[in-house]
Amino acid sequence: MSKTAPRSDSKEYLAKKERLARQLTIYGRKPVLEALQMPSVQCSKLHLAESNKRDGIINEICQLAEQQGIEIAWHDRQGLSRISKNGKQDQGVAADLELATYRPIREFNLESVAPGTRLLALDGIHNPQNLGMIIRSAAASNIAGVILPRKGCAALSPLVIKASAGTLFKAPIFHCESLTEALPALKDNGMAIYGLSSHAKTSLFQPLSDKPAVFVLGNETEGVSRDVSKLCTDMLAIPMANGVESLNVAVTAALLAFAGQFQQG
Amino acid sequence: MSKTAPRSDSKEYLAKKERLARQLTIYGRKPVLEALQMPSVQCSKLHLAESNKRDGIINEICQLAEQQGIEIAWHDRQGLSRISKNGKQDQGVAADLELATYRPIREFNLESVAPGTRLLALDGIHNPQNLGMIIRSAAASNIAGVILPRKGCAALSPLVIKASAGTLFKAPIFHCESLTEALPALKDNGMAIYGLSSHAKTSLFQPLSDKPAVFVLGNETEGVSRDVSKLCTDMLAIPMANGVESLNVAVTAALLAFAGQFQQG
Repeated sequence: MSKTAPRSDSKEYLAKKERLARQLTIYGRKPVLEALQMPSVQCSKLHLAESNKRDGIINEICQLAEQQGIEIAWHDRQGLSRISKNGKQDQGVAADLELATYRPIREFNLESVAPGTRLLALDGIHNPQNLGMIIRSAAASNIAGVILPRKGCAALSPLVIKASAGTLFKAPIFHCESLTEALPALKDNGMAIYGLSSHAKTSLFQPLSDKPAVFVLGNETEGVSRDVSKLCTDMLAIPMANGVESLNVAVTAALLAFAGQFQQG
Repeated sequence: MSKTAPRSDSKEYLAKKERLARQLTIYGRKPVLEALQMPSVQCSKLHLAESNKRDGIINEICQLAEQQGIEIAWHDRQGLSRISKNGKQDQGVAADLELATYRPIREFNLESVAPGTRLLALDGIHNPQNLGMIIRSAAASNIAGVILPRKGCAALSPLVIKASAGTLFKAPIFHCESLTEALPALKDNGMAIYGLSSHAKTSLFQPLSDKPAVFVLGNETEGVSRDVSKLCTDMLAIPMANGVESLNVAVTAALLAFAGQFQQG
């Protein structure tokens, strides 16, 4: 491997950037083991800390990697922390996954968006349980994907993978730096941007137009953030009985993800 | 108060039985404090352990009870455990609540069930988080209620109250001993009993008849139990994309609870 950094406009650099944007690095013994056990999940590299004891689960991980011809890289604890970005919880194990369903939002094909296409966008979903549940519902529904910003949302940690019941590896996820960066391009290409808000006057249950749309789910306490609200074409509320003020955000996400199927009957 | 137990057919006994069936005893400092702070919640008696230190939260609880003219009973730790039924987690505080929305299933008015009426029935929902979320969605939706058996489901603990975001105090809950005891009467009175199962051939998204119906949600791992399945008139599945096998049970509950609103538009 060359030790010289490639020039930022070189083919090599762009190819690497492209590859990294489609790569998801997960960590933790159980999540990595489970990913290696799923035939549909492509792992390009396994990272292990030299300090790992060769116990049951580490042996199992190594065996699976060898069977599948996956490159194994050994690191000191610090080196592994740099890769997992969570030295406290990586348990000495990380894996680079290449998932056909995990892509940067710029790869969302705006030119051929069919009527009725729906995306969910997550704004400040910090709770790993909720994030995992949202991913699970999105994977099971017919929606086109979940827009997941790196800023302000929980990282794709073992807790998220567990709450997703392993569906993180097949859910259509479009990652981005922030929603304020990602949403304008979608809006410019004719998509409606709906923010969910308990104060909104328009009901989610009113039949919406067939226009392709992004539904933005905000933080449970604070709702959709101010900057993202400004980008919304309209705000929608779920009408609630008994004076209930809000639903769990993962429940709201599921209602949005499956709304199309209910409305088609 | 008389120390003699009333005869089991006496008016006094029946009145007490009736009252107890509508009474929900909760425990834990925070849940009790929050219940006392809600104007809509009627508390008939506050129970405190004599061992409680008169600190901030206990003082606050006592003051609220005094302001509202609620009887305060002091017990030794063992006596309080008998009331809370959870000595390990009651934190020396319990309260008897009288909620208009917490009733035995026999009080569900079968004679005037309108077309389209829906109930959810819970079969083996052990996880307090899920139970709380189900209660929250049920409270917010238009469904007639949740049938909650004492056997096989999580108790209404502080964890459930927290996950319900306080909506436990306003959600329409019909309690019973077991579903095998409660469902036959509903079925005999013309209600359809649908069990949710990922193996079912009928889709939940197909327009269902307007017949009043109970939807049974089973345990996440084992599904609807065998005995309850036998009572179901039909089994329904939620069609899922990407080979996802199941949804979180609280998500399924929310889709059922709000289905009517989506379908009406």
